[in-house]
Amino acid sequence: MKQEIQVSIHPLAQFAAQLQWSDVPAPVQDRAVDLWVDWFGSVLAGCKARPVASIARFAMSQGPASGPSEVIAQGASSSPMMAALANAAASHFAEQDDVHNGSVFHPAAVVFPPALAVAQAIGASGAELMAACVAGYEVGIRVGEFLGRSHYKVFHTTATAGTLAAAAAVGRLLQLTPAQMQHAFGSAGTQSAGLWEFLRTAADSKQLHTAHAAAAGLMAAYLARDGFTGAQDIFTGAQGMAAGMSSDANPARLTDGLPNGGVGRWATAETSFKWHASCRHTHPAADALQQVMREHGLKPADIAQVTCHVHQGAIDVLGPVVSPTTVHQSKFSMGTVLALAAHFGHAGLTEFDAQFLAPDTVALREKVRMELDAEVDAAYPQRWIGKVTVQTTDGRRLHGRVDEPKGDPGNTLSREEITAKALRLAAYGGAVGTAQATSAVASLWQVAQWPRVGDLLAAGA
Amino acid sequence: MKQEIQVSIHPLAQFAAQLQWSDVPAPVQDRAVDLWVDWFGSVLAGCKARPVASIARFAMSQGPASGPSEVIAQGASSSPMMAALANAAASHFAEQDDVHNGSVFHPAAVVFPPALAVAQAIGASGAELMAACVAGYEVGIRVGEFLGRSHYKVFHTTATAGTLAAAAAVGRLLQLTPAQMQHAFGSAGTQSAGLWEFLRTAADSKQLHTAHAAAAGLMAAYLARDGFTGAQDIFTGAQGMAAGMSSDANPARLTDGLPNGGVGRWATAETSFKWHASCRHTHPAADALQQVMREHGLKPADIAQVTCHVHQGAIDVLGPVVSPTTVHQSKFSMGTVLALAAHFGHAGLTEFDAQFLAPDTVALREKVRMELDAEVDAAYPQRWIGKVTVQTTDGRRLHGRVDEPKGDPGNTLSREEITAKALRLAAYGGAVGTAQATSAVASLWQVAQWPRVGDLLAAGA
Repeated sequence: MKQEIQVSIHPLAQFAAQLQWSDVPAPVQDRAVDLWVDWFGSVLAGCKARPVASIARFAMSQGPASGPSEVIAQGASSSPMMAALANAAASHFAEQDDVHNGSVFHPAAVVFPPALAVAQAIGASGAELMAACVAGYEVGIRVGEFLGRSHYKVFHTTATAGTLAAAAAVGRLLQLTPAQMQHAFGSAGTQSAGLWEFLRTAADSKQLHTAHAAAAGLMAAYLARDGFTGAQDIFTGAQGMAAGMSSDANPARLTDGLPNGGVGRWATAETSFKWHASCRHTHPAADALQQVMREHGLKPADIAQVTCHVHQGAIDVLGPVVSPTTVHQSKFSMGTVLALAAHFGHAGLTEFDAQFLAPDTVALREKVRMELDAEVDAAYPQRWIGKVTVQTTDGRRLHGRVDEPKGDPGNTLSREEITAKALRLAAYGGAVGTAQATSAVASLWQVAQWPRVGDLLAAGA
Repeated sequence: MKQEIQVSIHPLAQFAAQLQWSDVPAPVQDRAVDLWVDWFGSVLAGCKARPVASIARFAMSQGPASGPSEVIAQGASSSPMMAALANAAASHFAEQDDVHNGSVFHPAAVVFPPALAVAQAIGASGAELMAACVAGYEVGIRVGEFLGRSHYKVFHTTATAGTLAAAAAVGRLLQLTPAQMQHAFGSAGTQSAGLWEFLRTAADSKQLHTAHAAAAGLMAAYLARDGFTGAQDIFTGAQGMAAGMSSDANPARLTDGLPNGGVGRWATAETSFKWHASCRHTHPAADALQQVMREHGLKPADIAQVTCHVHQGAIDVLGPVVSPTTVHQSKFSMGTVLALAAHFGHAGLTEFDAQFLAPDTVALREKVRMELDAEVDAAYPQRWIGKVTVQTTDGRRLHGRVDEPKGDPGNTLSREEITAKALRLAAYGGAVGTAQATSAVASLWQVAQWPRVGDLLAAGA
């Protein structure tokens, strides 16, 4: 019954185990650092939220009362697993963390928390941490693409592919051999879980999903280092992830353009930042409005009417929201989003909370309408074109346009914008003061030069 | 967008949250205590095995160095989650733990470890512990039946349904309300995972599966107590467990005969003990051989030939194993199993390890053959009938028969046999001495009278 089994190492395991920071091209390194700083804002925005606090309390009750890994902005530390659990829960709460469009996967929330916790525990350098995180992004995005649309219909890809992403990042930090990395993938994939069912009653599972992915992936990597074995073909095996959780899995996506000697497709750099805190369907028009206001020096009061030329999907999702009565609803109101963007230059968490029913917001909201546009609709979903026509109070008819929403790779954020966004999120979360957040973010930009990863926030945060 | 959602409490959540030990009929209480003692032997058999030791090391590295919950026979303690992780890993290693035939689910491994760890942490009584464990069995078995055969083809039901079983047991100990129990089910189900793919290369995932189920279910219950919400219909919702992981799920099984006021179907009592340490297809014939030997006072040397009258499945699985060369293979050799049973009264772990190639074993093995039997084949798989014909050296032709293999509910083990099996497993594991194991097992039989659940092994084990 027992047979000797010839096992070959999957190129993705090989890649993740061997990636060096110096292999990563400079523009991708820079983008990875951008994503790292952007992630930090999301953690600070979420860390005091009720469901996140529940997970952090649980983590602190099950881990040691102090340890090598920072529980960010809780004034606490614990073991790597418990810190990863708490920080990952915080990362995805405000829904301002990054997103990879093709895989519909939010990498930051499941990669940075476990990697940071382990880097702090083993005294890794900043460059080692960032190489591990790039490995996590590259693996997680490809696993998400591999699992496909059928998977995403029922499973939360950030939770499922996220377990593999976390294992890859932690495994790289623990210097797993390619064979050990393959075992870690097996142990991660067999713990891969996360169902969308919670959405039906707006339950708290999203925080549990990122926490679970981070902790389970971390455990898989530690076990692999200790000689614990896992399935050798967890992706495409007859009883593996695709067999259990997908009907349109595409194995070619697992290795699509996998970089070799630095050359190839760096999926990390395809990751988008979220700029506005609203439904994605509102972003192109909001950016187009800002474009035309900048170009013509318009103030909100100059606007008599805005026509958003949109794809059908935007009308389907946003059309019913005429008069929002909750903050959540207002993020699906095209008029509210455009009004906030016009007044504040962005539609952020704070603006929604404080201003969604302010008279200025409502006044401009009432002047916004949507219209189906053939060009925009035809380009969607490959391209999210933003087009608006503005009628000014002095009778002009002006056109605004963006070809890619702000935050996507072709229209990315500047480092100043990333810093500003992170500080806004930190202020929104209220867990740390402005000075402390400012100083922490300034330091985070230097991560690749850190000889050793320490606490991101000074003690006593 | 936000709607008020009317939520009803699932009868299974209601049942699990409200079950009292005094609701459980005395014969079911007794069976539950039998299963509890039987489980303890499995933990001691597995606790020093390599994959189990890896998980225990990981647990101890991530939890506090000491805590309220016993890491059994490791001379250690930690937090409930970490103790549950380690003890659950140990429980399923020797594959001598119990099994519920209808759900193809091994309840003990995923119910007792998290329940024990939490009972120790909160100072529960033995009756509270056992009520919680019955809740775990009843829930886990029904979830396993609900998920069905299509699920089991790809997913390891002990891992997936096990997460729900663990949540139910721990949730009961934490005195969750029915509504909280439903949230705990949601949080458990969305972490439910475990793929059979590891079998292809005999990887270590089985230990990870029980560990993960225990820890994830425990976390779900603790979070629910803290107000953390989960999906309200994690079983049959459009993006729930059945939607993601089954194509033949049967919702009626979730509440099949659910006891009400003590009256109903107690699935706990349907659970089978494993008596022999071999492939289940060998058990009926091994028991029938022992029956005929007892009846006629035969010794192994009296046997000239044994014909096993079997179902086709037994021939398919066992037929190829003619001359086993490894311990694992020998557990699929009908001749070896019958030889060990004839010589030692049972085919246990120790007998396989030490005797599978002993001259006496091989000599009798060579006298055993299988033959398809119409009655046995027609009854299978509802009934596993054992039938043998023995030709004696003095020329007699004798027939042996059992209608249910030893360990199944209709042919269950006596308490003496359970004690003996547990002590054999303890000796096999080698983690504790005979005196200590004997004294611990004697105490375990009194669990329902314990005012407070303490360590199962005296300190210094």
